[in-house]
Amino acid sequence: MIRVGILGYGNLGKGIESAITQNPDMELVAVFTRRNPESVVIRTEGVSVLHTDKLTEMTDKIDVLVLCGGSATDLPEQTPKYAKLFNVVDSFDTHARIPEHFAKVDEAAKEAGKIAIISVGWDPGMFSLNRLYGNVILPEGKDYTFWGKGVSQGHSDAIRRVEGVKNGKQYTIPVESALDAVRRGENPELTTRQKHIRECFVVAEEGADLERIEAEIKNMPNYFADYDTTVHFITEEELEKEHSGIPHGGFVLRSGVTGMNREHKHLIEYSLKLDSNPEFTASVITAYVRAAYRMNGEGMTGCKTVFDIPPAYLSAKSGEELRKCLL
Amino acid sequence: MIRVGILGYGNLGKGIESAITQNPDMELVAVFTRRNPESVVIRTEGVSVLHTDKLTEMTDKIDVLVLCGGSATDLPEQTPKYAKLFNVVDSFDTHARIPEHFAKVDEAAKEAGKIAIISVGWDPGMFSLNRLYGNVILPEGKDYTFWGKGVSQGHSDAIRRVEGVKNGKQYTIPVESALDAVRRGENPELTTRQKHIRECFVVAEEGADLERIEAEIKNMPNYFADYDTTVHFITEEELEKEHSGIPHGGFVLRSGVTGMNREHKHLIEYSLKLDSNPEFTASVITAYVRAAYRMNGEGMTGCKTVFDIPPAYLSAKSGEELRKCLL
Repeated sequence: MIRVGILGYGNLGKGIESAITQNPDMELVAVFTRRNPESVVIRTEGVSVLHTDKLTEMTDKIDVLVLCGGSATDLPEQTPKYAKLFNVVDSFDTHARIPEHFAKVDEAAKEAGKIAIISVGWDPGMFSLNRLYGNVILPEGKDYTFWGKGVSQGHSDAIRRVEGVKNGKQYTIPVESALDAVRRGENPELTTRQKHIRECFVVAEEGADLERIEAEIKNMPNYFADYDTTVHFITEEELEKEHSGIPHGGFVLRSGVTGMNREHKHLIEYSLKLDSNPEFTASVITAYVRAAYRMNGEGMTGCKTVFDIPPAYLSAKSGEELRKCLL
Repeated sequence: MIRVGILGYGNLGKGIESAITQNPDMELVAVFTRRNPESVVIRTEGVSVLHTDKLTEMTDKIDVLVLCGGSATDLPEQTPKYAKLFNVVDSFDTHARIPEHFAKVDEAAKEAGKIAIISVGWDPGMFSLNRLYGNVILPEGKDYTFWGKGVSQGHSDAIRRVEGVKNGKQYTIPVESALDAVRRGENPELTTRQKHIRECFVVAEEGADLERIEAEIKNMPNYFADYDTTVHFITEEELEKEHSGIPHGGFVLRSGVTGMNREHKHLIEYSLKLDSNPEFTASVITAYVRAAYRMNGEGMTGCKTVFDIPPAYLSAKSGEELRKCLL
């Protein structure tokens, strides 16, 4: 049994908890929180919630610790810190800061003789893998990544900061005609506006100036100004009823050519359609928990990403079984 | 530079030849053939065509030998044989016999201190990888593999063996409504007939009994009897003009659930649309040539499949570059 700990019990931590119930070779040892442990109620019977202070006492009871904090401030501090004590997996997703994060975590993990797998999930994660496989198979080609249809937490937060907005949710939606042009092998050059549209569902405060709110959202730099944005005003009840989920998904496409005269076109397409973004991310992480455990068991150490993990390490099945059933 | 040899100059060997021109860190050293080498004209200037007898003299001139023979009789003999002399990559695709092939090749490669990567291509190959990733991420779910639209060589050969048939080509086509049911998360149980249809383009000999030919094709056991098959009689000119390509492709889907109550559905879909089946297969193999070279350079030996190869080994880029650009 792989003994797993969870640090942080938000949506992602909850997703890890449920993913563990789907992997019979794993057991949840404890959930760690910076809050008062008594205030955190988890759903797995018989498992304790402990304060993060207790982590140092648990090094011989946990094989892999999953870090479920945010990329902005939690993980840059937590991953190097806990890679000194445990094999860890995180979902660090600030693409631009991955090299820096990798370097720090690598140093810590190597020193401690542990494995730390960073940036696991679907983007970065499965989408990255598909970009890599696409690039090596079709070296002469073009990459496309589309996100959605799905809820963007960052953009929903941005809406909620607008004066007069009580609540709101934003969906990122790929532009179907752009996707189709890529699929037809046209290799289009696409601007930001041509790739995604943004759809907002907004609950306004009573008496608020709706026109002003709509204009403010649509013109918000970075978040909305470069996109075709639609704004729908709805009631709190409608928001709760129709938009309380956290779906997401997207597409990675590689369009390329082969042949002595580059006369043949090929299209590789990978897509995800997810009812729950955090639960899917957690499911990917849980598979990499197994890889971390097995690689460290074989004496490997240091920081790894999805690029470094032989796919077979993700499965509880033996090499023989995998070759027989899935190859 | 990775020095590559090609054994066998059919469609796949030609595909490897052109793929090498797309990978600047590789050079083609020689093409080997069992035919009279003077009868084989290749397209890369300055590269020799040699008889397979010469292979034993070339062990210090070739880093990786790509075996481009057929799975029925060539590879079961060639791969264990040449894994004793070279790092090799093959595209052995008789799914049921992979375990046996693996065992023989593993023994030979380990004894010689070489790496042998078997069953590389898209199925087995990229499709296998996607089945594996899908299974480990969504352990509670269902797998679907659809092939096509594309030319099946085996079924085209079967048509051509029917009396009165001069020439013919068979397309395997996934049933769109079945694909859509999978995409909607319905997890259908699909029979052979419900998954694929078979479309045949047949050139009959003059005066042949077309009704008899059509009936014989449609009722052929294993090949056509379990499918809805359509037969079109066309002229040799039409066949040449409209059906001389070797396109293929297909879909791998994993449909599964997550959540404490398995309340959320997820769909992972991977698809290929290929103008040239052998050139795409060759492009996948060529990426794994690089992995074989690098893994053996690090002292690894034995038989491997796509499941055992860390994705980063497929790329000429460094780990730093990959993390920066593709993660």
